[in-house]
Amino acid sequence: MGPHPAVADVRRAVREALADLPQGALVLVACSGGADSLALAAATAFVAPRAELRAGLVTVDHQLQEGSGERAVSVARIGSEMGLGPSEVLTVTVGTEGGPEAAAREARYAALSEAAERLRAAAVLLGHTRDDQAETVLLGLARGSGTRSLSGMASVAAIYRRPLLGIPRATTVAACGALGLRPWDDPHNEDPRFTRVRVRRRVLPVLEAELGPGVAEALARTAAMAREDADALDEWADSAYENCALSDIGGSVRLPVTELEKLPGAVRRRMVRRAAIAAGAPSGALSATHVLAVDRLLTHWHGQKAVDLPGGLSAVRRYGTLIFAISPIP
Amino acid sequence: MGPHPAVADVRRAVREALADLPQGALVLVACSGGADSLALAAATAFVAPRAELRAGLVTVDHQLQEGSGERAVSVARIGSEMGLGPSEVLTVTVGTEGGPEAAAREARYAALSEAAERLRAAAVLLGHTRDDQAETVLLGLARGSGTRSLSGMASVAAIYRRPLLGIPRATTVAACGALGLRPWDDPHNEDPRFTRVRVRRRVLPVLEAELGPGVAEALARTAAMAREDADALDEWADSAYENCALSDIGGSVRLPVTELEKLPGAVRRRMVRRAAIAAGAPSGALSATHVLAVDRLLTHWHGQKAVDLPGGLSAVRRYGTLIFAISPIP
Repeated sequence: MGPHPAVADVRRAVREALADLPQGALVLVACSGGADSLALAAATAFVAPRAELRAGLVTVDHQLQEGSGERAVSVARIGSEMGLGPSEVLTVTVGTEGGPEAAAREARYAALSEAAERLRAAAVLLGHTRDDQAETVLLGLARGSGTRSLSGMASVAAIYRRPLLGIPRATTVAACGALGLRPWDDPHNEDPRFTRVRVRRRVLPVLEAELGPGVAEALARTAAMAREDADALDEWADSAYENCALSDIGGSVRLPVTELEKLPGAVRRRMVRRAAIAAGAPSGALSATHVLAVDRLLTHWHGQKAVDLPGGLSAVRRYGTLIFAISPIP
Repeated sequence: MGPHPAVADVRRAVREALADLPQGALVLVACSGGADSLALAAATAFVAPRAELRAGLVTVDHQLQEGSGERAVSVARIGSEMGLGPSEVLTVTVGTEGGPEAAAREARYAALSEAAERLRAAAVLLGHTRDDQAETVLLGLARGSGTRSLSGMASVAAIYRRPLLGIPRATTVAACGALGLRPWDDPHNEDPRFTRVRVRRRVLPVLEAELGPGVAEALARTAAMAREDADALDEWADSAYENCALSDIGGSVRLPVTELEKLPGAVRRRMVRRAAIAAGAPSGALSATHVLAVDRLLTHWHGQKAVDLPGGLSAVRRYGTLIFAISPIP
């Protein structure tokens, strides 16, 4: 008798995600003790030795909830019992910058990256599922900031891998049940003050009810296609930028208008964005509205003045050149 | 005292949408009598003469509801009273192909195109609003078929223009109220058997409640950016296809694998799609799954057999060439 179908699905996803790693490499599962990462840990403990890989576990104690330390120790113990080694608790201190969610995420990824380097891991596996991906796409959609923000989470990004992006959350829950594992339910996952929780509990169920049960899958598919589209357009914009951008010692960037005019809007605006950032605009503060205002110097030219950009920067059009420099541009 | 802000908003949108038309040109408003197209008709009647344009109205009688003929006549009369001329009823017979919604749409656009040609109109204006656009994006998202399906409706497509894509539906309702116009409420717009009605009545309100009141605007912005991205990628794929595709008298199409391998996935798969259609696959039947299966002959090549495609077509890889032809490929 084979394993439970949910267990088999998770194992297959992990096997495929690890297929390119060299023999003897160490993979670390980042495990919160929740159903997703617990199922991921169990599958990795099963798959890794059969793929001639070593597998360990790390669990982050954010020190934000009563009893988080004990819980982290018990997750690390479960890891050891599964045969994962090393199986470590990473204790972090969460700051406040950018709000509680962003600060916790930053502290967590810093600890995971540090552990990966210290333990010479070839990959850190994260337990995000297809449902997490669908939520991420909806959050990006609500921001309305374009193809990149619809592209969700990457299946591979630097040292991180997300083997379960194609697996529904229900499968990880079923896999834990079949293996007799008792996942921990993070109370934050039920707190409706978090937008993501509202998306999960209220938005996605309505979408599924009104548009059909395949919505989460469709959103995840949209993410994968949006990511490829955004990558291709970035590649085009990068190569066009390399071909025609001129920067000087003072840090200003110049783009010839005739080159920009040859390009479709989607590529031209990506180049404008690159030029502004290369000239010193902070990328987080540079909005689509800024980029569109600069683009109007190309598409609706009637001798306008300079466009102000974040970071004390301006963009101005002079004698067939678009110039990005610290204002005022002489 | 100026006009009501809602009236001013609709007029401004119409003025911008007509700015490029030559003096004396005729624009036709397609008007159902609903709030959106009625506000559009009123704004066009005001704006067109001031922009030295002529403006008329056409209203389609689909003959599907009791009293539709009388209603169409009364919409045409309102048009005449606004000063729109000609103001005509176009009576159509709706078939059954593709379901009731698709059949009605096809009959309607055929009648509008015919009228535009007969009356030598330079543009036909459609009353779709920002809310219609948001609904279209959500419907595309639920299909999960990529950037093009997220790009909603075009603001300009052939002879058709949609001046109100940036205007909320509430504004057209307010404009009608301010002008003393009494819009007709199509009972189809309330029938929950239509997916679009469920999106409007149930999905969008939940999104706005949980993610914030800017969701419709964010969706419309997403549509505009997705359209530009899709256009740019199509341009890239078209030019790469022109550069390397070879077709023979029998209708088969050949693409060199080395050329395809140089391209990012998003462009390569668009070329695969073009090649399949050029070789005779019906575009409606050609799914993303088909394209992905052919793409695996490039990305995961291990001597696979031909991939079957709709329309009796196959794709096969032979000696460094991807061949699309009526199967069996000799």
